[in-house]
Amino acid sequence: MSIAACIDEANRLALERMLSALPLLTEVKPAIEAIPGMKEDIILHPGPPIDWERMCGPMRGAVIGALLYEGLADSPEKAEKLAMKGEISFSPAHHHNAVGGMANVISASMQVFVVKDNGKSYYSVVREGKNLRFGSFSKDVIDRLKWTEEIFGPSMNAALAEGGPIDLRDLIARALHMGDECHSRCIATTLLFENELIPRLLKADVDREIISQIISFLKEDQNFGLCLVMGAAKAITHNAHGIKNSTIVTAMTRNGVDFGIRVGGLGDKWFTAPSPSIDGIFFPGFGPEDASPDMGDSAIVETSGLGGMAMAAAPAIAQLKGHKDPYQSAIKYTMDMYEITFGKNKFFTLPALNFIGTPMGIDIRKVAETGIVPYINTAIAHKEMGHGLIGIGLARAPMDCFTRALKALANKFG
Amino acid sequence: MSIAACIDEANRLALERMLSALPLLTEVKPAIEAIPGMKEDIILHPGPPIDWERMCGPMRGAVIGALLYEGLADSPEKAEKLAMKGEISFSPAHHHNAVGGMANVISASMQVFVVKDNGKSYYSVVREGKNLRFGSFSKDVIDRLKWTEEIFGPSMNAALAEGGPIDLRDLIARALHMGDECHSRCIATTLLFENELIPRLLKADVDREIISQIISFLKEDQNFGLCLVMGAAKAITHNAHGIKNSTIVTAMTRNGVDFGIRVGGLGDKWFTAPSPSIDGIFFPGFGPEDASPDMGDSAIVETSGLGGMAMAAAPAIAQLKGHKDPYQSAIKYTMDMYEITFGKNKFFTLPALNFIGTPMGIDIRKVAETGIVPYINTAIAHKEMGHGLIGIGLARAPMDCFTRALKALANKFG
Repeated sequence: MSIAACIDEANRLALERMLSALPLLTEVKPAIEAIPGMKEDIILHPGPPIDWERMCGPMRGAVIGALLYEGLADSPEKAEKLAMKGEISFSPAHHHNAVGGMANVISASMQVFVVKDNGKSYYSVVREGKNLRFGSFSKDVIDRLKWTEEIFGPSMNAALAEGGPIDLRDLIARALHMGDECHSRCIATTLLFENELIPRLLKADVDREIISQIISFLKEDQNFGLCLVMGAAKAITHNAHGIKNSTIVTAMTRNGVDFGIRVGGLGDKWFTAPSPSIDGIFFPGFGPEDASPDMGDSAIVETSGLGGMAMAAAPAIAQLKGHKDPYQSAIKYTMDMYEITFGKNKFFTLPALNFIGTPMGIDIRKVAETGIVPYINTAIAHKEMGHGLIGIGLARAPMDCFTRALKALANKFG
Repeated sequence: MSIAACIDEANRLALERMLSALPLLTEVKPAIEAIPGMKEDIILHPGPPIDWERMCGPMRGAVIGALLYEGLADSPEKAEKLAMKGEISFSPAHHHNAVGGMANVISASMQVFVVKDNGKSYYSVVREGKNLRFGSFSKDVIDRLKWTEEIFGPSMNAALAEGGPIDLRDLIARALHMGDECHSRCIATTLLFENELIPRLLKADVDREIISQIISFLKEDQNFGLCLVMGAAKAITHNAHGIKNSTIVTAMTRNGVDFGIRVGGLGDKWFTAPSPSIDGIFFPGFGPEDASPDMGDSAIVETSGLGGMAMAAAPAIAQLKGHKDPYQSAIKYTMDMYEITFGKNKFFTLPALNFIGTPMGIDIRKVAETGIVPYINTAIAHKEMGHGLIGIGLARAPMDCFTRALKALANKFG
């Protein structure tokens, strides 16, 4: 068999495995209970591996927030010292089948959504809805983290135990028909989640005051559903990881300094390049000079064929990004992505493209051949810690990641 | 001023008035408490005026259901006799600023949504979610009507009293960005309604078992939100009624025998023609020969520029109707409708058309000039009473209604 045929066969298997995913939200637990090997002095961070010294401002801010929240430090200064001294170890969330959006690090007590699929577990940190994920560590962030720990997590977990798991594939499929691309726009995702959640909360006899609090929480953070999509996307893509000869990308992620990808047939190595800047719309008073480069594990959404890849589902996002013809632009984004993917997802379909499947299975060969890199819908954090969200935009995965991966592939085949 | 200029001026005012509508859902009450002049021996029916003798099968079925539910008869046979003897009077719901979908008649104890706008009240009957609106009067229909009377109505009313009115314009605007055309597809509308409703139910201290029942009820009837859209659409369109010289259609409705329209500058007269058959997809075992002609007050939705007029919002409906290229078909439907409307609704925008407004203000002159009649998304009832829903489809308003109205206009101008 030719090398190309070998690779195609491997990629067909990769697609098949991704399509076999049926991610179910089963539990909400503190990270230390849910994630094997999690410890009190470990902080999991988004993106490829990085240490404190190289971390960008907002991620340092989130680490400080986590240390304050855990009670490991009682001031930002002490937290910074603790992190600097090496008494805390850092590990990429992806190495633990976990994901966190933007700068959202995961510490021991933080609540994670547990997503089960094909006998494996995946973990998506519950975003607290304030600005930890943009590097803020103010009192409202810490208070809200406590609330997710004491109220939200246990109530959610009781609801899932009583009412059964929530089928995330179905939820995403429906949301794509309701104007979400499931990254920058998760409005329907969040509503559909709430619609599944509330009957379970009632069934589990959760206090009505707490139910009201949870509803308010979800109303305030309309894009909350992204956490769930990220968990599902991690499960979907991980199914294609570790398939010999496969050239399908199984993870894309960024820590604000490096952008990294993993490829199904190239082991656990990260192929990295500098994290790109974001073509974005800024809130008044901010501009590109204030922006942190692209950041967070949320690009797992695009890896699974959603978000920027499925922009055709959400012209509203193209409009938000300033396009004059948002509908045509949205279609164009997705059409471009079919050029670099190996197949389509029959479960996730696009009304605006007559219900054909979303582009799935980014093939590093096609990226190199066409010169087209994946689109990633993203938010923009201030480059300095303690600020927050300053805009939204579109990033492109850096070509260097793909060419480096291709070189590794070439070396493998000799 | 030329006649054409006079009419244009009147139509501009009509559009302005329709755009001034801010329909709020304020109460849920029994018809007899809410609707002025409502009595125990009156039944309000959908469509233009009709008496028992000319009524179609499913509407007779609904009348029987109403009489059984009200306890005015204790068997279908006795109910039929009562109706035949003339002891019950029939009046079009529209004559009371009320609306009912399909064959959904309104009797004294039935619950109605009260929609307030510009100091006026409008009433949309709460569909019980079984098959009264398709002419069924089985026990489950009657039981469910009792439930809406005893449980749903009072709980909803308490929720609205405690938590404040629900802004239906906002709800529709959001639903149009979530794949609903707000007639045959009200999935997002219903979800958004639930999202507004549940916090209010909690706030009003409604029993948790009842809240669970209401959630199950809304889950079972995903298109329930149509009742709310109908109430809002009645409010919107009524604002344009009674404007001298206006050629804008202010109501379209059908009773399964006649299709009728009212025109803003032509008083309260109904211009009627035989109700059309429906181009539809039938459930297995049924075909066009089983179908009742087009029926119900729900065409008020199209009168306001939604439903079949806003098909571009919902390719899923075009797909359901059997189109091979649902997206292009959906766009084409709406593009056709701009040919016959006087303006656009800036509050209701269509993502697939780069967020331009829905076509609004059907102008009988344009209908006659272009030969294009409004599209109406609709369900198909069995022509005999006691059956139910047998399909869904698309109807066209009959041209004769418009030409008759135009003749009346011509006579007026001499």
